[in-house]
Amino acid sequence: MAEREKPRLGVAMIGHSFMGRVHSQAWRSATRFFDLPMEPRMRVVVGRDAQRSKIAAQRLGWVESATDWRRVIERKDVDLIDICTPGDTHAEIAEAALQAGKHVLVEKPMANSVAEAQRMNDAAHRARARGVHAMVGFTYRRVPALKLAQELIAEGRIGEVRQVRAQYLQDWLGDESAPLSWRLDKTRAGSGALGDIGAHIVDLTCFLTGQRFAGVSGMLETFVAERPLAAAAPVPVAGGGIGGSRGGGLGGGFEASGEAPGPAAMGQVTVDDAALVTARLISGAPVILEASRFAWGRKNALRIEISGSRGAVSFDFEDMNVLHYYDATQPGRTAGFTRILATEPEHPYLEAWWPPGHGLGYEHGFTHQVVDLVRGIAAGEDPRPSFEDGLHVQRVLEAIEHSSGTAQQWTEIHDQERR
Amino acid sequence: MAEREKPRLGVAMIGHSFMGRVHSQAWRSATRFFDLPMEPRMRVVVGRDAQRSKIAAQRLGWVESATDWRRVIERKDVDLIDICTPGDTHAEIAEAALQAGKHVLVEKPMANSVAEAQRMNDAAHRARARGVHAMVGFTYRRVPALKLAQELIAEGRIGEVRQVRAQYLQDWLGDESAPLSWRLDKTRAGSGALGDIGAHIVDLTCFLTGQRFAGVSGMLETFVAERPLAAAAPVPVAGGGIGGSRGGGLGGGFEASGEAPGPAAMGQVTVDDAALVTARLISGAPVILEASRFAWGRKNALRIEISGSRGAVSFDFEDMNVLHYYDATQPGRTAGFTRILATEPEHPYLEAWWPPGHGLGYEHGFTHQVVDLVRGIAAGEDPRPSFEDGLHVQRVLEAIEHSSGTAQQWTEIHDQERR
Amino acid sequence: MAEREKPRLGVAMIGHSFMGRVHSQAWRSATRFFDLPMEPRMRVVVGRDAQRSKIAAQRLGWVESATDWRRVIERKDVDLIDICTPGDTHAEIAEAALQAGKHVLVEKPMANSVAEAQRMNDAAHRARARGVHAMVGFTYRRVPALKLAQELIAEGRIGEVRQVRAQYLQDWLGDESAPLSWRLDKTRAGSGALGDIGAHIVDLTCFLTGQRFAGVSGMLETFVAERPLAAAAPVPVAGGGIGGSRGGGLGGGFEASGEAPGPAAMGQVTVDDAALVTARLISGAPVILEASRFAWGRKNALRIEISGSRGAVSFDFEDMNVLHYYDATQPGRTAGFTRILATEPEHPYLEAWWPPGHGLGYEHGFTHQVVDLVRGIAAGEDPRPSFEDGLHVQRVLEAIEHSSGTAQQWTEIHDQERR
Amino acid sequence: MAEREKPRLGVAMIGHSFMGRVHSQAWRSATRFFDLPMEPRMRVVVGRDAQRSKIAAQRLGWVESATDWRRVIERKDVDLIDICTPGDTHAEIAEAALQAGKHVLVEKPMANSVAEAQRMNDAAHRARARGVHAMVGFTYRRVPALKLAQELIAEGRIGEVRQVRAQYLQDWLGDESAPLSWRLDKTRAGSGALGDIGAHIVDLTCFLTGQRFAGVSGMLETFVAERPLAAAAPVPVAGGGIGGSRGGGLGGGFEASGEAPGPAAMGQVTVDDAALVTARLISGAPVILEASRFAWGRKNALRIEISGSRGAVSFDFEDMNVLHYYDATQPGRTAGFTRILATEPEHPYLEAWWPPGHGLGYEHGFTHQVVDLVRGIAAGEDPRPSFEDGLHVQRVLEAIEHSSGTAQQWTEIHDQERR
Repeated sequence: MAEREKPRLGVAMIGHSFMGRVHSQAWRSATRFFDLPMEPRMRVVVGRDAQRSKIAAQRLGWVESATDWRRVIERKDVDLIDICTPGDTHAEIAEAALQAGKHVLVEKPMANSVAEAQRMNDAAHRARARGVHAMVGFTYRRVPALKLAQELIAEGRIGEVRQVRAQYLQDWLGDESAPLSWRLDKTRAGSGALGDIGAHIVDLTCFLTGQRFAGVSGMLETFVAERPLAAAAPVPVAGGGIGGSRGGGLGGGFEASGEAPGPAAMGQVTVDDAALVTARLISGAPVILEASRFAWGRKNALRIEISGSRGAVSFDFEDMNVLHYYDATQPGRTAGFTRILATEPEHPYLEAWWPPGHGLGYEHGFTHQVVDLVRGIAAGEDPRPSFEDGLHVQRVLEAIEHSSGTAQQWTEIHDQERR
Repeated sequence: MAEREKPRLGVAMIGHSFMGRVHSQAWRSATRFFDLPMEPRMRVVVGRDAQRSKIAAQRLGWVESATDWRRVIERKDVDLIDICTPGDTHAEIAEAALQAGKHVLVEKPMANSVAEAQRMNDAAHRARARGVHAMVGFTYRRVPALKLAQELIAEGRIGEVRQVRAQYLQDWLGDESAPLSWRLDKTRAGSGALGDIGAHIVDLTCFLTGQRFAGVSGMLETFVAERPLAAAAPVPVAGGGIGGSRGGGLGGGFEASGEAPGPAAMGQVTVDDAALVTARLISGAPVILEASRFAWGRKNALRIEISGSRGAVSFDFEDMNVLHYYDATQPGRTAGFTRILATEPEHPYLEAWWPPGHGLGYEHGFTHQVVDLVRGIAAGEDPRPSFEDGLHVQRVLEAIEHSSGTAQQWTEIHDQERR
Repeated sequence: MAEREKPRLGVAMIGHSFMGRVHSQAWRSATRFFDLPMEPRMRVVVGRDAQRSKIAAQRLGWVESATDWRRVIERKDVDLIDICTPGDTHAEIAEAALQAGKHVLVEKPMANSVAEAQRMNDAAHRARARGVHAMVGFTYRRVPALKLAQELIAEGRIGEVRQVRAQYLQDWLGDESAPLSWRLDKTRAGSGALGDIGAHIVDLTCFLTGQRFAGVSGMLETFVAERPLAAAAPVPVAGGGIGGSRGGGLGGGFEASGEAPGPAAMGQVTVDDAALVTARLISGAPVILEASRFAWGRKNALRIEISGSRGAVSFDFEDMNVLHYYDATQPGRTAGFTRILATEPEHPYLEAWWPPGHGLGYEHGFTHQVVDLVRGIAAGEDPRPSFEDGLHVQRVLEAIEHSSGTAQQWTEIHDQERR
Repeated sequence: MAEREKPRLGVAMIGHSFMGRVHSQAWRSATRFFDLPMEPRMRVVVGRDAQRSKIAAQRLGWVESATDWRRVIERKDVDLIDICTPGDTHAEIAEAALQAGKHVLVEKPMANSVAEAQRMNDAAHRARARGVHAMVGFTYRRVPALKLAQELIAEGRIGEVRQVRAQYLQDWLGDESAPLSWRLDKTRAGSGALGDIGAHIVDLTCFLTGQRFAGVSGMLETFVAERPLAAAAPVPVAGGGIGGSRGGGLGGGFEASGEAPGPAAMGQVTVDDAALVTARLISGAPVILEASRFAWGRKNALRIEISGSRGAVSFDFEDMNVLHYYDATQPGRTAGFTRILATEPEHPYLEAWWPPGHGLGYEHGFTHQVVDLVRGIAAGEDPRPSFEDGLHVQRVLEAIEHSSGTAQQWTEIHDQERR
């Protein structure tokens, strides 16, 4: 049978919390909707706690569970390591996996520092020579409306890029009584809004424009410096928008369990709550970015608008199936932003899904990510965003932090990849 | 292990085209995100063509395939029949399955006539006494924003229902060169826009208001009376909105293959392209409905707004994660429709999914349908929409057709279910 | 001076309440922004009460006030009578004015019955032969975005008209404690939502499609049959949306003052609160209409969408500077409704106003109405909407009432104008 | 008569182009809709060219015209000078007028430099002691939805201000063939997008938060450095969005007429096309601002969103009658941004206008400005925005320019007003 003769791709996933759940749905769904050149097999999920990992395997569709990722990357039946743990573990796991000859998909942000990202990129560079591939999980690149935007820009449909404006606004920290979690701990998370969500709009800017950043000026702000430790956290008073699921349990088995703190125990927030950035691309085009987890009423408002010399595109993830496109070459009388419902068979990834207007959701971007990753591996091509792409994002994040610490001084970004 | 001790629920699905693909994703996903009291097993998919059915089984995740649904409903390891075929086959299959003691999930519209629906409902009534359950697949009831609307109305948050206005607008037939398909053939499909999409807003009106229809006045219209037969159909000239995937192949293995027609062969459209309805609920509340597959630019615009004595709710499927709610008891100064992004943990079905703002898509309603169905079966309760609910919708559709044929004469609807 | 040599057009306005205030602003503004072939002079405003009329003249910019409209229409320095009184007075005033050789602008609805409208149209027909012109104030025809829609349709930009769907939704009667006013009295107002706001969408349908109605089926509904008399009315409990200014004082001096009723005095509502209509145009195209003053949260939601064979236009007065246009001939990949901000110099009436994006408001339609009226008179052409247009609308309204009284029976509309 | 006994306020307007036209409509309309404590008289309009000024007087409703503003400010029957000329003339006229004991309304930006603004403020300070008042025309403060926002914030309805994000986007310079105008000449206009539209969002930030700016980091960009001189300008190729009316003639009689340039004559653009700013308020709250006249498809998109500790408000001038308000204290289940149509009688300025939903337009803000100015003068209170407010804006603009010239270095703002 043709189907059976496809080469198999053994997959191991490390971490099984929020990101692990989405990645699992992607691995389960990709082959149901897309023709893939290889057949992924969900071999094993890895977590710290044996019992919880076992339950996760059952629930998420992995054949087995394990607790020692080092052994898993040595398994012969595992070809790809999907890293869904907090950022402070990425470098170590990714380097080891690549070294062991395993393809790697690593969640964003790629790492917690440029140094780590550089090491990972070096490892990916060496691995590539041996046919081993690595990719960073900036999944919004695979939202059909955003992929369509990228294609329209690449085709010149907005002319030369003149300006980029983007925001990534959430509000789940708006309530000061929301508890501390690993995402508010610099050691674990690297940074706050900047790396968690700001990284996405930095990457999307690169993806959509086909350019890198030349320099930045940035401001970081922490609104609430101290929060109740998880066990001490009261029920939030302000109900609107306190997402419960991003909290303590998000480490996916890789988080220290911790002692139950006393009733009034408070902890320090060591990351930024918001990041404000002005920047320039290599072409000189100005960019303005904001990331905030304190923007009440905005739940997942990843917005990006790119103005070119002949048009513009505009997107908001809260209406994720829609791309707005302005064509400045049309007559003024009927000019305006066109609301493209990116659910037509002509749209990226859509031939696999439902009829027009029957929209996709958040998880579909992850399915498309798996599709592109598997196709890339089969073709022997490095899937984008590559570790070089991820390293660049890391450099931008670090430059923003540097600028923020030096009175917003303009900070140049120097990429020195070997190519 | 607790998980293994759950009772199993063997599922067979008949038909594997558009609806079969969505139902399969629902069966595959439900247990991944929800705790179910029974463990569904995707035993067998049934189609006319052995080879295509085998491929479908592999692709969609069913253990086996078969071509004779009569044998399948006799299988001991099959507990539930999921009917995804065109409407003209529903009654026969559902009756036989219920008779054989199998639970039934039947896609909407329930049947092609009231007589068929009545027979099905009688069969369901008899089956219920033996602990066998039946449900109609009006899946939009399980869109979180619409379920939230239903709950708010049931809690009195808009007061007494005064008016219902609803539209279901698509445009995939707007191009007169789009080919004939079984959906345009009265024998197969029962009716056109009326039964295909109008049925949904009839059902949603009942669901949201908790009422049935008392009478209707209706107008049916066919804009394009003749269309190219599928093989003869040219590539559509007008690109915007011609959905390719609802066409000839949608019968899911139950469609006659047909001879390839000559180049200019045309066929008759025997169903309505649009339905316009005014109606009243049992309470006397006026209802206005429109279904059209010719509304250029509207891809899947299922819109419903209900005005009550103290507020209103409003919904549009093209922005499916949002419910708009107006509370008339608030002070005028800050009154307005509130855009509720129905993606919070407090919202129906959402505790199982992603953080706020990370929206769901079309297929999730089907997953929730499976969840409610399995829970209902396990609890020995009849899941809604029941066959009585489906029969009522069928009566409304028939009354609309009758009114349309008699100068829009007011046509009363009489439900005479045994209860 | 060229400006001084322009022929003057003496204007008298009868009624000085809500409509009188808007019309006055239009007369004051038209010459400030548009080059008119005649110079309107605001000679006199007429009301029942001498003192209130005098204050109105001062406030609204009329040279004088008067209380006897019969004398005013005989004045030599008055060339045009602008009728802003309740509907039951329109026929008498308009006939007399036309008879006296005065041009007439009459607020909508033209009259309270077909018989009255017919008499008015006959009078206009006779007057026309003597160079005297008459126009009905369906002012929404002069909203730039709607005029643009009309032009696009006339140019074939949406192909043949297939369907019309329109709503006119308000909520100022949603609160059952809102008091009675002349607008709820059939004798004064003719009808309720039907004539007050339904008339607008009937007229707009004719305007936009260039067609008349062939027949209708209609349902009228009164939700609240009894209301407090004005003086007895308590402060509304539900704050959102109870417009205070459409109430008792709206007669503009033509309303009976009345005795102060006792504290619990209630009065009968003798008009409809909502009208639901299905209809067909002369071409056979189906039309669906709803008018309601009970649609909580909708303040002035006049919405109309027209689907043609090659595209569609869509409008909502709550976003009055925007027209949405769908061009079905564009490729599906970038197809979608284009949001045209109708504030460009290329747009109707806009050359007179502000730069793009600096939107217009409600009153501007009235200014444009004056502009078109004066230009029509100067050119010796009958401005549209003519009394024939208004008579047709009246026939549609009457047919809807007739249908509503006869079980929604299909009711044909026969126009028999002399032409 | 009470009306006649009101003190009169003789008004002279200098400049009669775009701004002069709007201001004239405001002076004409204010008394028609609002009860004012003084009666404004539109005495004289001043322009350079006698003939054009005479026509302007006639057209715009001023009794007389004049060409020498110095004489006009000496007139006894003139009490207030309304300055609508380009920014380079503001200081001289305003100082002289205040010195002459005349109230002053000056269009924004107040001046072309801090030095000028300081002189003007000193003059206003001296004048105030003599009962003479001065105001800057930041008219967007008087848009009802924005005034409502200010009131809600002042009442604590969003808690403490945490962040401000604002954009002012237009596209009328997007076409590189659009001609040079005085607005692109630093000598006349002071700056480009920064002062023209950026000034508005700087002022609105102060207005809405009740705070001043503490410091800024800014980037200025000029996309098109050279443009055709007006007479040489070809008809724009890209039609969408090239506003014709802001061009050469906008000086309102105060612009040098110039020689007709040769066919290929080009001139230098000496101002910025876009400004990107990060800033902090006195409280430390971060602010992010962008002004651009190159944002294709955005016609007058003045957008501002303020996130507080308990809620947020959001506004877009392209939908100017709407304020979006998020109340974070409401339960999450029904939380969301509420779309407040700010057209209720309870809303600022609305009691004077039309029923709910009958929206206002751009010019109404100017009418409200006149109303507040006249009321302030009559009450002997200094109307806001005062010259101190305007001076602060000027300081912010200058600091942005300074930062832009010094690698975006953080630049503090020091207000040293005498109080």
